[in-house]
Amino acid sequence: MFKHILIPTDGSPLAQIAIDQGFALAREAGAKVTVVTVSEPFHVIASDVEDIAAIAEEEFHRCEEAEHLLRDTQAHAAAMGLDCEALLARAGRPDEAIIEIADRTGCDLIAMASHRRRSFIEMLLGSVTAKVLKNSKIPVLVYRQ
Amino acid sequence: MFKHILIPTDGSPLAQIAIDQGFALAREAGAKVTVVTVSEPFHVIASDVEDIAAIAEEEFHRCEEAEHLLRDTQAHAAAMGLDCEALLARAGRPDEAIIEIADRTGCDLIAMASHRRRSFIEMLLGSVTAKVLKNSKIPVLVYRQ
Repeated sequence: MFKHILIPTDGSPLAQIAIDQGFALAREAGAKVTVVTVSEPFHVIASDVEDIAAIAEEEFHRCEEAEHLLRDTQAHAAAMGLDCEALLARAGRPDEAIIEIADRTGCDLIAMASHRRRSFIEMLLGSVTAKVLKNSKIPVLVYRQ
Repeated sequence: MFKHILIPTDGSPLAQIAIDQGFALAREAGAKVTVVTVSEPFHVIASDVEDIAAIAEEEFHRCEEAEHLLRDTQAHAAAMGLDCEALLARAGRPDEAIIEIADRTGCDLIAMASHRRRSFIEMLLGSVTAKVLKNSKIPVLVYRQ
């Protein structure tokens, strides 16, 4: 049924639920997996040279962490015998980046986790999962914390 | 991965998307299917005998239609070689009935369809799928119209 599953991750325990269960589903279905981490760029105005250097260093560390997470996740996939591609995306809107990558790579399912019983304010603001659910053209499998 | 899939239906084209794709998934996974239609009872105050009779008749026809829908859906499942149970629930809150039945029958996935790009008002009021997504303890697979 599903041939190519997109699983976004930010390294959080919530995202790990989707990794664990999505990988198990992919193995059963014989599906390919694409794992994506979206790194949001800083939007900081700084004129001081030290501040600019500190921001650049923070950006560098964030990218390093994301790449480390993706390498670990890909090693986990390889240990399960999965065909897994890992992508690092730089975008201001993670939900838009997730949908765009799912579309571009030909995924037929997006698997994500979500908290249950979000507060009214959280519902209004919208989590990344809620925003993907609102706009995705392909099925979205929501795992519950 | 999934052994027992709950698919709610109200006979609408939107619900049919979940039936078609959910049945295909169940066949691939070798999963059992439970199809449920939730019929919301009338809440009308009437003292006139003719009105009471008309309401009773309307209720009767609604149940007849729901049973007809379930029989057709079960025949569709049988033709695909699926193990399919069909349930008619009478409840004021379809989302609560769906979650309660999924829990009681031991389902490990709820498969439902949803419109994309709902308006802000629709989002606030919440569709049945949105309400199930908010409260379900088990994964929810959302097919997109």
